[in-house]
Amino acid sequence: MIKIIVDTLGGDRSPYANIEGAVTALNKIEDLKIVLVGHEADIKKELENKKYDEARLEILNADDEITCNDKPTEAIRTKKESSLYKAIELLRTDETCGGLVTTGSTGALLAGAVLRVGRIKGVKRPAFCPIIPTMNQSVVGLCDSGANVDCDSLQLSQFALMGSLYMELAHGIKNPRVALLNVGVEAEKGDMLRKEVYEILSNDERINFVGNMEAREFISGDCDLVVADGFSGNVLLKSTEGACLNMLGMFKGVFFKNLKTKLATALLKKDIYEVKDYMDYNNYGGAVLLGASKTIVKGHGSSKATSVFHCIEQAYNMEKSGLRSKIAEAFQKN
Amino acid sequence: MIKIIVDTLGGDRSPYANIEGAVTALNKIEDLKIVLVGHEADIKKELENKKYDEARLEILNADDEITCNDKPTEAIRTKKESSLYKAIELLRTDETCGGLVTTGSTGALLAGAVLRVGRIKGVKRPAFCPIIPTMNQSVVGLCDSGANVDCDSLQLSQFALMGSLYMELAHGIKNPRVALLNVGVEAEKGDMLRKEVYEILSNDERINFVGNMEAREFISGDCDLVVADGFSGNVLLKSTEGACLNMLGMFKGVFFKNLKTKLATALLKKDIYEVKDYMDYNNYGGAVLLGASKTIVKGHGSSKATSVFHCIEQAYNMEKSGLRSKIAEAFQKN
Repeated sequence: MIKIIVDTLGGDRSPYANIEGAVTALNKIEDLKIVLVGHEADIKKELENKKYDEARLEILNADDEITCNDKPTEAIRTKKESSLYKAIELLRTDETCGGLVTTGSTGALLAGAVLRVGRIKGVKRPAFCPIIPTMNQSVVGLCDSGANVDCDSLQLSQFALMGSLYMELAHGIKNPRVALLNVGVEAEKGDMLRKEVYEILSNDERINFVGNMEAREFISGDCDLVVADGFSGNVLLKSTEGACLNMLGMFKGVFFKNLKTKLATALLKKDIYEVKDYMDYNNYGGAVLLGASKTIVKGHGSSKATSVFHCIEQAYNMEKSGLRSKIAEAFQKN
Repeated sequence: MIKIIVDTLGGDRSPYANIEGAVTALNKIEDLKIVLVGHEADIKKELENKKYDEARLEILNADDEITCNDKPTEAIRTKKESSLYKAIELLRTDETCGGLVTTGSTGALLAGAVLRVGRIKGVKRPAFCPIIPTMNQSVVGLCDSGANVDCDSLQLSQFALMGSLYMELAHGIKNPRVALLNVGVEAEKGDMLRKEVYEILSNDERINFVGNMEAREFISGDCDLVVADGFSGNVLLKSTEGACLNMLGMFKGVFFKNLKTKLATALLKKDIYEVKDYMDYNNYGGAVLLGASKTIVKGHGSSKATSVFHCIEQAYNMEKSGLRSKIAEAFQKN
């Protein structure tokens, strides 16, 4: 049995989406236990008309919430009645709890993970690794997407190793192709940091390093994991998201411009929705925090129930695959 | 009379697109002189059937070409018969030549500009500033987009000042809104470099600093100039370009999927082409190298004649507006 904690507060659609996502997960995955953390009365009311195996669901009451208006590090230190604080404390102290899923504050989660949950031995700093759909119907991981804005070459090479294990074990990609985000593809491109990392990754036999990658190729599907410092990784992730959303918006403007275009769009509807669905992060999991000593998945702040379900499924898969111990093993040899 | 040098070699559509673009520019701009640099015989043959004011066109023969296979710095030092080397030498030595337009190697151009042409007094390092169309029918400048992968706070604050003057003088945007690329909007976000730059820009009265900007908002139109180090600026530019092209590709797949979708697409054709045209860099100028002691415009490697024309027009506008002396003036007071 795998036990995952689900924070029901902090997201735009909390607690409803989080609770519904948890119930879906319980119904789809047999050997899964869930602990819902949040306002107990609200949770119970929401659960009233839902069908699920009650023996596999626990509730931990938390009266307070960390919001996006709170200063992350301060909030995780002082808001001890918040759902996120209580969830992290439970994750830290209860050996039977393997993972945590939240759609709340990224900063508070990161602070809590680093300060309270701790790292796998040998890992310098945990890093966020979201997965993004590619143009060839696959996905690409990005590590780090923003946990560490200042990085050295050891950290980047660790992101490569952890990310590679994650893509292989949790996403079933054999011998994942790992690329380094850079300003050009040639080996000598980039700053001193990139040159150092290029050298390290080229000589690490545990990693299938395919060389430098320009940001233009991020979603082309030519590699399975992109390694970046948290600053440029964050720029890569957010600009891709922004450009895709803006392009969808422009086409929407075309489709609904007038009666003629609306008629034409009706004929294209099914295929356009396929593109839209394909780009929708709700159909994928969240960003995992690799290197933390427990499994941690951060869902998008505006996650719907489907997205929360996928995040729980992702945490379950990570636990089931033994990813944490595989990372620990790899870093013991480091 | 403003004299601009046009390198006719080095681009994917060279020399034809470059020559045609130059002829268009001569016909549209009365007080413009052009020097075409490249294979004289080829240029003369290409000009044979074109109508233009011959008194305003010169040719400088160059038998060699710097290609993307050459190592940039080495090429600009050794390939002394190349069109780009000769163009840069002419720009450096001929006081009547104000600017240079090329669609050739970015690296060789940068090396040549820094090593041969030199900087405006007080400018630490020149920086590339391309302009990108935004969702609200305007444009946004990005400085630096890749000339300097390692930057300090003085450089970034200089990019802000040069870029601001450029957007105002060459693009007619009064009091341009300048934003700093960062991982979050709050003042305390980012690494030490970003915090230092935030402080400097907040206190510089010559700059209309609107604060930090996340990569997601790059093409939203909320600001007129984005300031970045060359590494993350390059990531921002290329990932935006890649995501937009990939989205266009996905929609193209929908539009031409089958007979039904093709019929529907026929009805949308005009509006779709408007979006495509709007996103097409050929309809905008190139990336200018701000801070060099002469005007330098780098067009896209696959530039068509229209794009070359826009690059020449851009170089002309920069010279006409006195941008170089305005930057020199601002840096004298620095």
